[in-house]
Amino acid sequence: MRFHTRKWVKPGDLNANSTLFGGTVLAWIDEECALYAIIQLENKRVVTKYMSEINFMSSAVKGDVIEIGIEVVKFGKSSLTLNCEVRNKMTHETIVTVDNIIMVNLGENGKPKPHGKTKIEYVKDRLAVE
Amino acid sequence: MRFHTRKWVKPGDLNANSTLFGGTVLAWIDEECALYAIIQLENKRVVTKYMSEINFMSSAVKGDVIEIGIEVVKFGKSSLTLNCEVRNKMTHETIVTVDNIIMVNLGENGKPKPHGKTKIEYVKDRLAVE
Amino acid sequence: MRFHTRKWVKPGDLNANSTLFGGTVLAWIDEECALYAIIQLENKRVVTKYMSEINFMSSAVKGDVIEIGIEVVKFGKSSLTLNCEVRNKMTHETIVTVDNIIMVNLGENGKPKPHGKTKIEYVKDRLAVE
Amino acid sequence: MRFHTRKWVKPGDLNANSTLFGGTVLAWIDEECALYAIIQLENKRVVTKYMSEINFMSSAVKGDVIEIGIEVVKFGKSSLTLNCEVRNKMTHETIVTVDNIIMVNLGENGKPKPHGKTKIEYVKDRLAVE
Amino acid sequence: MRFHTRKWVKPGDLNANSTLFGGTVLAWIDEECALYAIIQLENKRVVTKYMSEINFMSSAVKGDVIEIGIEVVKFGKSSLTLNCEVRNKMTHETIVTVDNIIMVNLGENGKPKPHGKTKIEYVKDRLAVE
Amino acid sequence: MRFHTRKWVKPGDLNANSTLFGGTVLAWIDEECALYAIIQLENKRVVTKYMSEINFMSSAVKGDVIEIGIEVVKFGKSSLTLNCEVRNKMTHETIVTVDNIIMVNLGENGKPKPHGKTKIEYVKDRLAVE
Repeated sequence: MRFHTRKWVKPGDLNANSTLFGGTVLAWIDEECALYAIIQLENKRVVTKYMSEINFMSSAVKGDVIEIGIEVVKFGKSSLTLNCEVRNKMTHETIVTVDNIIMVNLGENGKPKPHGKTKIEYVKDRLAVE
Repeated sequence: MRFHTRKWVKPGDLNANSTLFGGTVLAWIDEECALYAIIQLENKRVVTKYMSEINFMSSAVKGDVIEIGIEVVKFGKSSLTLNCEVRNKMTHETIVTVDNIIMVNLGENGKPKPHGKTKIEYVKDRLAVE
Repeated sequence: MRFHTRKWVKPGDLNANSTLFGGTVLAWIDEECALYAIIQLENKRVVTKYMSEINFMSSAVKGDVIEIGIEVVKFGKSSLTLNCEVRNKMTHETIVTVDNIIMVNLGENGKPKPHGKTKIEYVKDRLAVE
Repeated sequence: MRFHTRKWVKPGDLNANSTLFGGTVLAWIDEECALYAIIQLENKRVVTKYMSEINFMSSAVKGDVIEIGIEVVKFGKSSLTLNCEVRNKMTHETIVTVDNIIMVNLGENGKPKPHGKTKIEYVKDRLAVE
Repeated sequence: MRFHTRKWVKPGDLNANSTLFGGTVLAWIDEECALYAIIQLENKRVVTKYMSEINFMSSAVKGDVIEIGIEVVKFGKSSLTLNCEVRNKMTHETIVTVDNIIMVNLGENGKPKPHGKTKIEYVKDRLAVE
Repeated sequence: MRFHTRKWVKPGDLNANSTLFGGTVLAWIDEECALYAIIQLENKRVVTKYMSEINFMSSAVKGDVIEIGIEVVKFGKSSLTLNCEVRNKMTHETIVTVDNIIMVNLGENGKPKPHGKTKIEYVKDRLAVE
């Protein structure tokens, strides 16, 4: 799994117990999956359709550095299934894992549309080709 | 299921497709479950431990009014399992459902602690008694 | 008065004294009145026109659960007058009351427009009828 | 009346009608009164106690520049009464006025405390003296 | 230099060390320069093109009142160069200074466009003239 | 240069011209440098001391995916100098570059403190050793 995006836990990210607010973590996961799908599918119109069960295994406190990892589970016809882990960057302790997050590729009309992708591509290769 | 909290979808709640950002919805659900658990367990130290799978069934756009419903599934020893639905207030169209959200009651030491509750209570009854 | 929306006081809602920021409370009231009016008037174009005097009677701290109640004072021709109370959900202590908040129903042209409503309606009845 | 703070109306400040969200304006007023009172009373512990009626006279749209003016109405024993106007910087069109906003000076114990001030002071004079 | 906008440092503005988050300060500076340029150039389409080096000289904590000062360095043909200082309102201690911030005036097509301004103007004079 | 953190440009990140708000970009850069320094210096108390000149070379719009790259310029005694580039993930077009950002390592007393680091370390190596 490759970890890209990092977050610095600031006061505005905390819940009333002064630990990282679960809703903030979920919003971070959703954003990361959306942008990962946009990159892979080369289409800005993607939406989150489904998330499998979510286990909050540990938390984080103010000042912690968090990183979010994404891995492709499967390229569907008009979907992309991702696996996600959020962990503490310094200790690698897992905070949350979500095994399957299904992102759907939409067409102009807002309906699912085949994306024609079957494997991971890297932007640098795409740019090199053009 | 009783629906309490309502949200007005504003520009800041949208994703880049101009529909309601999934991460915002998840943060709303998490907050609603946390405060529902605080009310029932009469303890401010509760955390989200688990969410079962999440289906995004429809979306919402700027100006929509959303409501969030919670139902108790089970009172555990130191946990409370909730069921949640987010829907459009005007059409009752379901946006997201989450069947099981497990909230855990914590003690002063941050460890799970029995809460002694076995059924739903209403604040007005508690206040009347005292 | 019926109380619907609930808020969990989080660090980002506090002022520099670590009590609930008054501006946050006012923003919560304004949003609740707007969406209440949208529901009753079945029109998304409503604006806040007037608020009568506002008394901050008590405050709240991190972790408190707040609820917001709305009551209809009067159905005008193109307006709806509401009464609002914000209180602590657990103790029912009043935080703020505003006796009269006038919401105005707008037409396509952004000008006040008669709404034709004269009494409270429930969405479930509207949906049942259709 | 002297106008100090300016705001640039950005997408995140809008309501669902794409006009400036009333709740945002109220939060801006509350913050401005709080910091004005802190400056005058030389005490960081001030709270908003009361606002007289609020008239929303016009609105604003994305890209507008807004300015907020404050004037002292009265120095009380442990309070400070302010008058506030929010207007469009470019046209001077009034958006909202609030005639009386009572800020209360608090002591260490969180109770009202005499502030000993009777007239407006300027920070530059205070600093010159010391 | 004239100081207009004031900010009240609230919990949501802090970094994980509980001092004012540098990114928040930079966002405040950028907004202030943008709106200052809009006012002077009488054009809503202005963008930040360049900032000279930034020195963080001191910080601020929760409850501090901050003020932001702007001074015109130079009117270019399609640009406006500003000088900015952020300081503590009560002590006048400098937090950050930026000597040159270049704002560019854009036309309808999003390209730089001459603004025809050569000196500072005051809105009250403009309004008096019309 | 290695690019880690990614951002999805959402409506709340835009300025009034509907392009990415410069202040948001600056806040993203500051956060990324802070957390990069925390990771390298193994100390949560780091602050931004200086940024060299900032060139806004292009902008971004709603839905764009942005990535932020960091490179170490120099390990000082109690500082760490970083170089940062923000670019469009899909096109690799540069949005902003900042050649030198000096982060300072602080001790318990809030004063600069030698960090003892002289080269880049990877968390996975640190964890493997222990």
